[in-house]
Amino acid sequence: MKFLVVGVGAVGSVYLAFLSRAGHQAVGLLKKGRALNSICVEGIWGDFVQEVRAVDSLEMLNYEPDVVILTVKSYDTEQALKSIEPVISKGSLLMVAQNGYGNYEKAVELFGRGRVLLARVIFGAKLIDYGHVRVTVCGDDVVIGDPAGVVEDSFLKELAGMFSRAGIPSRHERDVYKYLWDKILYNCALNPLGALFETTYGRLAENPYTKSLMDAVIQEAFEVIKAHEIPTFWNSPEEYRKHFYERLIPPTKDHYPSMLEDLKRGRTEIDALNGALVELGRQKSLNLHVNQTIVSLIKAKELFNLP
Amino acid sequence: MKFLVVGVGAVGSVYLAFLSRAGHQAVGLLKKGRALNSICVEGIWGDFVQEVRAVDSLEMLNYEPDVVILTVKSYDTEQALKSIEPVISKGSLLMVAQNGYGNYEKAVELFGRGRVLLARVIFGAKLIDYGHVRVTVCGDDVVIGDPAGVVEDSFLKELAGMFSRAGIPSRHERDVYKYLWDKILYNCALNPLGALFETTYGRLAENPYTKSLMDAVIQEAFEVIKAHEIPTFWNSPEEYRKHFYERLIPPTKDHYPSMLEDLKRGRTEIDALNGALVELGRQKSLNLHVNQTIVSLIKAKELFNLP
Repeated sequence: MKFLVVGVGAVGSVYLAFLSRAGHQAVGLLKKGRALNSICVEGIWGDFVQEVRAVDSLEMLNYEPDVVILTVKSYDTEQALKSIEPVISKGSLLMVAQNGYGNYEKAVELFGRGRVLLARVIFGAKLIDYGHVRVTVCGDDVVIGDPAGVVEDSFLKELAGMFSRAGIPSRHERDVYKYLWDKILYNCALNPLGALFETTYGRLAENPYTKSLMDAVIQEAFEVIKAHEIPTFWNSPEEYRKHFYERLIPPTKDHYPSMLEDLKRGRTEIDALNGALVELGRQKSLNLHVNQTIVSLIKAKELFNLP
Repeated sequence: MKFLVVGVGAVGSVYLAFLSRAGHQAVGLLKKGRALNSICVEGIWGDFVQEVRAVDSLEMLNYEPDVVILTVKSYDTEQALKSIEPVISKGSLLMVAQNGYGNYEKAVELFGRGRVLLARVIFGAKLIDYGHVRVTVCGDDVVIGDPAGVVEDSFLKELAGMFSRAGIPSRHERDVYKYLWDKILYNCALNPLGALFETTYGRLAENPYTKSLMDAVIQEAFEVIKAHEIPTFWNSPEEYRKHFYERLIPPTKDHYPSMLEDLKRGRTEIDALNGALVELGRQKSLNLHVNQTIVSLIKAKELFNLP
């Protein structure tokens, strides 16, 4: 299979390096003016340096990929979707492997049902430097599926198997959209507070005041989930909170959110996380006070951190 | 006149040093086990070292003060009021020279109307070290009055004149309670956000996201003011905001909140500021969402900063 990896940050570097190492044809799409010949990988999935192919413009691409893997930051999604439109219109499938709400939805709006796959990525990768990535933690397999139910299960299983054999543990799930929301909830509760206090997930859960704020974030998120009839694994905020504190946090208790690194650089994905919850709430006349305040705090910090 | 200064932190050190220098009898009441022979003053009101008298227990005090000046942190108010009860019951007047809501109110509850004066202190003082204080800024005279209207104006004018002649610019105002609320609003908007972001008042007002949060803090404060019929100089949040951004912030734009120093030491006066607004709201079934979230953030940070 042939791949195009759009966005060669932390997650994109992992896909490009592992797929290339496994002998697949894979090309990275870089920002204009950039170049990249190899990727240095380190961390829990092994240490190696892999030669890779990358271009800074789609016009330089001399093949038609079967799957385009989208890994850009959420605030770059619209621009990235526009740039790959010529490729998708020739028949490539798009796999959205990003954080938060709104990326998959925008892609489906543009390219239609059956053309867009969703991947819930829950391994942690940190870009040490351009072309140098560390895999820090793996919460679960990458879960791949077509929320629209159009793409054949057999193809999705094959795709997941291929990623797994290349070294990125993956599986197919029809419920992928529920998995995405599971991660959205996790990220909305932990990322902004972890970034603001520059602390770990474990310490956020131990501190009764950050715990009460996370409880409120989850409570408000479920108001939105209910109002929009979004499918989830959880029937109530209480059910999710039990899962969150007892299952999700313990194995990642020493983890710092990637939003902390993003914040230091002055731009985060808050609009696709708590900001998306606030916007979904607004559509149903719900005021998500705590999420709104947290969004303002992160955006304030983004501005304060700009050079 | 004879004075007892209860609490010898930043503001207490200023009162004890300036009153002693002017030749008044003044004694500082220290925490148990502490001793203090002199205070080093620096800053905008001059630099000098002044010998002072201080005791760590009221039993060691061999005179009856005319006025007891209360300058302890708000979280120590109840304990301090209990400790000075014997002195007040013998006839001393209490002057509450603290930050926030609830200190004056608790004192009146305990000692009755006509026994408690209120001082709105709006000069900035920073305790460099125990017995070493810097006066950094002076927003306005200390405003002194009896909100209950029992104590004679002539006495209050005399008291204010005496403080002024001692070097602490002061004046009497019957509306002192309105002045207190003016400062509560100012502190609730600026202190917690300045402490969280470790930034100046000017930068908080320039950043549109912290500005929107301060607007919301003020909006919610006016819901409480209206519900409790608290007397203020302002008929609406809009009127106060105009005063706040155009009059109050410009001369203090380079100022950092004292709450930032308090937060580093692990304990702030948030309960007497935004926490008091939240509690006053609760009494009238009002939810002050933004203030409540800010209280939780500051309390979270207090805990994270504990050794």
